[in-house]
Parts: sequence; structure tokens; C-alpha cells
Amino acid sequence: MDKKTIWDLGRPSVDQYRSRPKLPLVLVADNIRSLNNIGSLFRTSDAFLVERIMLCGISACPPSPEIHKTALGAEDSVAWEHYDRTADAIARLHADGYTVCCLEQVKGSVGLNTFRPDPEGRYAIVVGHEVDGVSQEAVDASDLCIEIPQYGTKHSLNVSVSAALALWHFFTALHTS
Amino acid sequence: MDKKTIWDLGRPSVDQYRSRPKLPLVLVADNIRSLNNIGSLFRTSDAFLVERIMLCGISACPPSPEIHKTALGAEDSVAWEHYDRTADAIARLHADGYTVCCLEQVKGSVGLNTFRPDPEGRYAIVVGHEVDGVSQEAVDASDLCIEIPQYGTKHSLNVSVSAALALWHFFTALHTS
Repeated sequence: MDKKTIWDLGRPSVDQYRSRPKLPLVLVADNIRSLNNIGSLFRTSDAFLVERIMLCGISACPPSPEIHKTALGAEDSVAWEHYDRTADAIARLHADGYTVCCLEQVKGSVGLNTFRPDPEGRYAIVVGHEVDGVSQEAVDASDLCIEIPQYGTKHSLNVSVSAALALWHFFTALHTS
Repeated sequence: MDKKTIWDLGRPSVDQYRSRPKLPLVLVADNIRSLNNIGSLFRTSDAFLVERIMLCGISACPPSPEIHKTALGAEDSVAWEHYDRTADAIARLHADGYTVCCLEQVKGSVGLNTFRPDPEGRYAIVVGHEVDGVSQEAVDASDLCIEIPQYGTKHSLNVSVSAALALWHFFTALHTS
């Protein structure tokens, strides 16, 4: 089993990537504090054809050397926009026909392992602050909450890990080619 | 949809966690350079009841303030051991009846989205160095290679993100209660 070379992988250039179709899947960063986490969201979104990232509130925006350290250039390939208020981003998504899913531990949540995205649907995933999680205001404005079952000692997973699990779950449902 | 409190979540203490049954799922770190990544592997393994982590080669071991920064204490709840050579860890796993799966982009790999773990099986997932990936020696010693399909501009995902996706995939197959 030989490892693939960069040529075997056939990765697109940034220009090629930007012109290719994306999935109807938006990532919403609700007040993410760490620039490393923002960078990681870009890197993962690049791999899974995320349509765009909505950076809300205190979430930092490119260009930034700290974001670049973990995004490794994916901050140039993935489209993004900034909203001062997460509620405004969610209102925009609703107006555009997206189902808005918070990734949060709430009463009445749906387990990530049991949620089946409609392959014809359009989705946004909201991830939240490293300590406080998704704000109650954003939870209240969303259509549903998805929770990652966890059995350990820690309160939660790292936000860039949680986001990746959710993006992967939706990617496998929405990506058909 | 009210957010769950720490009491609603009912997380176990470190002592409670250590005495609980784990999944027959081992994570092998093949020369992971970054202590932040090691810490993240612990935090994710804690959530998903990973049996133990085998830290191989240059992969750093707890206790370490840098590992703690991302593990947040999960370095105390998750069992671990160190091997100088990844090949020795894999030989030990084979002797104990584990199917050893490298998470790597190789010719002849199986897609993570299509691989169906046997719910009765015992598995080890090998993840590799941040730049070089899993070593060819470890690939050669393993039973199969699992690859995460990626469509972006970057060569690969961050190793703690890749590991989390694989652990989550196996967790959902092996965790039945």
C-alpha cells in the first residue's frame, strides 16, 4: 500500500477550487474566541466543500497570521463573511431557505448519529464559543439542535473537532458525486 | 430549547471513568510532533470511550503543561502507554487480536464513509506525523488503510481532526448501549 503523492491526490488550486460547485452547507461561527480554532474551521471546510463560513460577533476574520497558522491557506479558498450579530446571520440563512442547526448540548436535542439530513436540503451548522458554547439567543433562533453523544469526563469536545464531526456528517449525506 | 447544565450532562469523575468499560478501540499516535495535537487526541478519546492511546516514537507523553492545555485533564482519564517504535505497538495489537487500520491517503485505501466496522471486532487506528503522515513502515505493518475523502486545496486535514472523524466513525459502530 504505497502512500499517495501530492500528484496522485490531484488537489485543485485556490482559483480552481473557488470556481467549483460547493455543497449547500454553511458553517456559522458564533463568537469563537481562538484564532487557531477559526483557522481549523477553514481548513476543514475547504476539505468538505463548505459553501461559506459566517464569522459572527468576536470571531476573527482573515487575513490574520494566527488564522493562517492552522488554516494553511484555506482562508483564501473558502468564502466567508462577517456579521456583528449571529442572529442576523441566522435570519439571512432562514430568508435563503436554510435549515439552521445548532451544535449544542440542549434539552430536546437530536443525536448527531441519528440525524439524517435531507440530501435535497440546505443546511447551516452553528458552532459556539469555546467555554460558553452556542449562545442561548442563537439556540432560540435555530430550527433544531444537534448534539454529539459524549461519555467522558470533559464537558465537551474542542469546537474545531465538534465542527469537523458535524461537517463530515452533513458532507457524507449531501455529497453525491 | 434550554442548554444543558453540567449537572444535566452527568459527566463521570476521573475515577468513575477509569473503572467503566471502554470500547475495543485503540488509538496509535505514530510520531505526532505537536503537543497540542497529543492533548486533543486525549480529549477526543475521553469522549468516545477509547480503550487506550499508544504514544509512539517522538509522540510526547503526559504529564506536560502543553498537553494539558488541549487535553484539559483527559490525559488523566484515558489510559496510555509509550512505545519507542510504532511497529512494536502494531505487533502487540496484532498479538492481541486487533485489526490495525492506518488513517492515511494510500493507493488501495478504503473510504471512511464506506468502511463498516464489525460491531464484534477490535480495532486500532493509527494516525501519523503532521507533515509526513503515517510512516510507510507502519502502513506496511497494518491490515488496511482508511482514507477520509477530501476535495479541497489542502493536502490533508489536521491530524487531531482526522483522528476525531475516525474515532467517531468507529464509536458509532462499536457503541451499542
